[in-house]
Amino acid sequence: MIEAGIIGGAGYTAGELIRILLRHPEVNLNFVYSTSQPGKPVAQVHQDLLGETDLKFSGEINKEAAVVFLCLGHGNSKKFLAENQFSKDTKIVDLSTDFRMAADDHSFVYGLPEFNKEKISTADYIANPGCFATAISLAILPLAKKKLLKDEWHVNAVTGATGAGTSLSGTTHFTWRDNNFSAYKSFGHQHLNEIGQSLKMLQEDYSSAVNFIPNRGNFSRGIHATAYTSFSGSLEDVQKIYNEAYEDAAFTFVVEEDLHLKQVVNTNKCLLKLEKFGDKLLVTSIIDNLLKGASGQAVQNMNLMFGLDEKLGLDLKASYF
Amino acid sequence: MIEAGIIGGAGYTAGELIRILLRHPEVNLNFVYSTSQPGKPVAQVHQDLLGETDLKFSGEINKEAAVVFLCLGHGNSKKFLAENQFSKDTKIVDLSTDFRMAADDHSFVYGLPEFNKEKISTADYIANPGCFATAISLAILPLAKKKLLKDEWHVNAVTGATGAGTSLSGTTHFTWRDNNFSAYKSFGHQHLNEIGQSLKMLQEDYSSAVNFIPNRGNFSRGIHATAYTSFSGSLEDVQKIYNEAYEDAAFTFVVEEDLHLKQVVNTNKCLLKLEKFGDKLLVTSIIDNLLKGASGQAVQNMNLMFGLDEKLGLDLKASYF
Amino acid sequence: MIEAGIIGGAGYTAGELIRILLRHPEVNLNFVYSTSQPGKPVAQVHQDLLGETDLKFSGEINKEAAVVFLCLGHGNSKKFLAENQFSKDTKIVDLSTDFRMAADDHSFVYGLPEFNKEKISTADYIANPGCFATAISLAILPLAKKKLLKDEWHVNAVTGATGAGTSLSGTTHFTWRDNNFSAYKSFGHQHLNEIGQSLKMLQEDYSSAVNFIPNRGNFSRGIHATAYTSFSGSLEDVQKIYNEAYEDAAFTFVVEEDLHLKQVVNTNKCLLKLEKFGDKLLVTSIIDNLLKGASGQAVQNMNLMFGLDEKLGLDLKASYF
Amino acid sequence: MIEAGIIGGAGYTAGELIRILLRHPEVNLNFVYSTSQPGKPVAQVHQDLLGETDLKFSGEINKEAAVVFLCLGHGNSKKFLAENQFSKDTKIVDLSTDFRMAADDHSFVYGLPEFNKEKISTADYIANPGCFATAISLAILPLAKKKLLKDEWHVNAVTGATGAGTSLSGTTHFTWRDNNFSAYKSFGHQHLNEIGQSLKMLQEDYSSAVNFIPNRGNFSRGIHATAYTSFSGSLEDVQKIYNEAYEDAAFTFVVEEDLHLKQVVNTNKCLLKLEKFGDKLLVTSIIDNLLKGASGQAVQNMNLMFGLDEKLGLDLKASYF
Repeated sequence: MIEAGIIGGAGYTAGELIRILLRHPEVNLNFVYSTSQPGKPVAQVHQDLLGETDLKFSGEINKEAAVVFLCLGHGNSKKFLAENQFSKDTKIVDLSTDFRMAADDHSFVYGLPEFNKEKISTADYIANPGCFATAISLAILPLAKKKLLKDEWHVNAVTGATGAGTSLSGTTHFTWRDNNFSAYKSFGHQHLNEIGQSLKMLQEDYSSAVNFIPNRGNFSRGIHATAYTSFSGSLEDVQKIYNEAYEDAAFTFVVEEDLHLKQVVNTNKCLLKLEKFGDKLLVTSIIDNLLKGASGQAVQNMNLMFGLDEKLGLDLKASYF
Repeated sequence: MIEAGIIGGAGYTAGELIRILLRHPEVNLNFVYSTSQPGKPVAQVHQDLLGETDLKFSGEINKEAAVVFLCLGHGNSKKFLAENQFSKDTKIVDLSTDFRMAADDHSFVYGLPEFNKEKISTADYIANPGCFATAISLAILPLAKKKLLKDEWHVNAVTGATGAGTSLSGTTHFTWRDNNFSAYKSFGHQHLNEIGQSLKMLQEDYSSAVNFIPNRGNFSRGIHATAYTSFSGSLEDVQKIYNEAYEDAAFTFVVEEDLHLKQVVNTNKCLLKLEKFGDKLLVTSIIDNLLKGASGQAVQNMNLMFGLDEKLGLDLKASYF
Repeated sequence: MIEAGIIGGAGYTAGELIRILLRHPEVNLNFVYSTSQPGKPVAQVHQDLLGETDLKFSGEINKEAAVVFLCLGHGNSKKFLAENQFSKDTKIVDLSTDFRMAADDHSFVYGLPEFNKEKISTADYIANPGCFATAISLAILPLAKKKLLKDEWHVNAVTGATGAGTSLSGTTHFTWRDNNFSAYKSFGHQHLNEIGQSLKMLQEDYSSAVNFIPNRGNFSRGIHATAYTSFSGSLEDVQKIYNEAYEDAAFTFVVEEDLHLKQVVNTNKCLLKLEKFGDKLLVTSIIDNLLKGASGQAVQNMNLMFGLDEKLGLDLKASYF
Repeated sequence: MIEAGIIGGAGYTAGELIRILLRHPEVNLNFVYSTSQPGKPVAQVHQDLLGETDLKFSGEINKEAAVVFLCLGHGNSKKFLAENQFSKDTKIVDLSTDFRMAADDHSFVYGLPEFNKEKISTADYIANPGCFATAISLAILPLAKKKLLKDEWHVNAVTGATGAGTSLSGTTHFTWRDNNFSAYKSFGHQHLNEIGQSLKMLQEDYSSAVNFIPNRGNFSRGIHATAYTSFSGSLEDVQKIYNEAYEDAAFTFVVEEDLHLKQVVNTNKCLLKLEKFGDKLLVTSIIDNLLKGASGQAVQNMNLMFGLDEKLGLDLKASYF
């Protein structure tokens, strides 16, 4: 059994990790570290676990754990690792933005299995992709892989309220968000950096913009993204390219059915649909922001790092309704 | 024109008052007093007013206003009036619980027009009823008025998230409340006091319990209540009693159609439906918690105090969908 | 009083018209024609009206009415008018798509008051704009009016479920739509025709595409649209152009606050926000699809046709929450 | 492997069964019978399964299947079994109401494992309980088991829209149900029969009423029920009785935390909370109507019938948000 630990236990992504890891056949959830509430039963914070586990938050870190997931606020992972040293055999999956951009001062591998499986398999440290970055990258990277991108991408995506984290704020107040809709961080969302990095890696000469308008939807889970660019090839050409790109993907599927968000909610899947309208290629992409967009993908990366079946512990029943 | 002021301008009930009073043909909204944001445009807080008004929050109170509405937290109205003295001609409508229970040290009249219209018409100070209290009282008082109550009432009601006020809390976080449901304060809600006082006033010998389970619904506005008790008379008897009780009511109607909450959302109405099942009388009652349950009823009381048509400024278009 | 009639009384837009016209100070709602349920009380179909009106659906049409609103399915207005002839003094507002495109065989004027007020004022027949068309046109036409458009527009908009009409369908089933999101009719929505016609009218040489992806949101009312194009001028330039364009607009306002849909729900307003990001101009536009996007605008057009204050009967209290 | 079949494949309960059985380690989903769409991929109807299975609806029934689940409309199971005969070794779990009331003309065992585990284990035919019946029975039967019931129960429960089935209707239209609430079938819900039967079986002399008001909530999944009766014992007494009753229960837990519906959504659990207020005992009970209230419990019954671990295939990750 793989002894796993979680650093930072109260947030949404930690909760999802706990739910998954408690059921993972090859993992023992060794500890969930929390500075604020050590000793408190995990099921009192993540209350769907009532009756399922007696696990308590721990004030101690097991530095010999086989794998550790960092569920800390953006900026805090770097700080945490500077202050805490794990065994050299401990693998780390960081869910923050801290190590997603390649840099000389760290050796984290960007954990998007569909385009980086080999490196992930031998990595010790994984920077888990952002939720919007996952949905959008899976929509646009196959063409970059073939060096076929030319013009700008126009991307519009909507995320559920869990995307904003557990802390209370005006835009996550129920009376505000209920039956509401709004755009935010237009043309400036932080995930554009990692998307740009992946594009560059696959098609170095591509220098057009990815125009991205994120939106706040009045639902809790999920990301629905549409992305279009001009593309001269036929729909069949594109389908071939995408099907090839995702031939071995464990959770990403190109389908012909119309997409709607709830097809993937509470699963680790990404569904993609391709359409052509005149010279425009439209790609629709849907994921669960907390699973494929965070904790599910983190476990997928863990599976790859430990040589396990990529899908282990991740064959989740969708809630669908 | 009646010069009106509002004390405490940022909350839900203040917002609704502002919306109503700005459109009221006989009222000039003289000031909205706010200690926290004087000088700030009201439309920046209540943003549906963008483009409609240049009104700013005021740091000053006009103590000569013809009417003042207190939209302060429970407990703060009493304190505020101890520290601030209005002109002897200033009428006051308090939306808090502070003066709802009759007492020797104040002369506030309980502002439930359906049962207290005469006293309201000549009152200077009105204690505006609570939202649950309004929905439930209108459901159960007609029988008390006829001294026909005997056994316990069994009441279950659900309120929208605006019932909990604007401050952020765990149970008003979107991700918690969305698609959720929960009971709270069972058998102990504070509105039982005012309901009990009204019952006693109408039928002094009634001493059975009003069993009340309030619930949090995953919607923003409205209260849906069902109340039943044993009653030996026929449905026709009951209909006669209720129709008589509400013969002159401006906003309360006994209907035969099935009720659902959205029939009254964004209106000042209360709809009631009567049914008999064996010896049980079931009364269903629906209101908008912020209008008939708060600010709408406050303006209704103001209309009565000033000898205006009770419905003036309150013939609101329902949103319905 | 203006004697008004409605043809087709059961749908959403008819319901909103009834709600507005019953409260309009210069209108008497003369009849609501329904072939399917003549004699039935209107309040049994539009149940927020319980207690408010005794009006019944009529099986007869008053052909001498001063104004008639056609709330028929697309394609049926043309058919209806071929079969029914009104008095030559009867003004007609058609809410369907049937007469929105100018053509030799009809004399309907396109009823977008912000750009067509003069013609509307003297028109007898109005083609009321589509909901998406209204939201998008108000976002993009000011630049066309100045002949300043050059490149493509990229538009993404989301509509509430009332946009799909009252008939039951898979995508309006609650269990499907709740907490869901989906795109539809990408690049091919029928409202692109009327938008294109308006663009051409204002800037004849503009021939770039309006790329439009409509989406189904999990809320009932409202449209939120974002539209961007490349524009070399400064933000100040744009603000000047838009403020000028809407200087006399009764319901359309350019604001600096962040927009969110509920600012306009249950009102006849359109709010616009302008932003520049590099060479991109982003315009966000929000309306209530049933009011400014349908019945509210229809009454606004009626007011103009009859020489009334454009806002009469349309100063509606937002529901906001 | 147990060869399993499903009769009637398009509804909510069939969908949930398919989701569960496809992941069940001891089951092979042999066929899903559908008269209306034989040959159609199951994932085109239950679209969360896209990318997961190539299973197609079948026009043929395998009458040698080890277990068959009937997901037919109420009344149709009896008819179906009259027209179709299975092998004598085929076990049957019926999800309709048809066989829930014991009768001389059938040998179906009522499948509420918490109170009937032994009989279920040796049964060939199971009548799977109704959703409301499950939530309410688990709340009230422990006292009946101890013959301690005396007075009436007062029960109020709210169900999600999936409780109404997949067919479109006025009350499942999104624009109606969104942000709405309504009671229905007050004092007359059909599940009172099976609840009464269970009460009688456990405490023959109990003859007081179970007063039950069901409600339609504006969410998709789940049942939240509150039930109270007078009870003279202490809270500790009650806790002891309930803890004893559910000592061996696989999915039913008595907890001290406040309950809210999403604690159990997308799980097979029932959570119960006990409170005393004066002489009233209040029991709150929550389940997922499609899992513990239908398909999950059906598989739980199957597990028991086949001598498997009761929880096999049912350790589902909650969606929670």
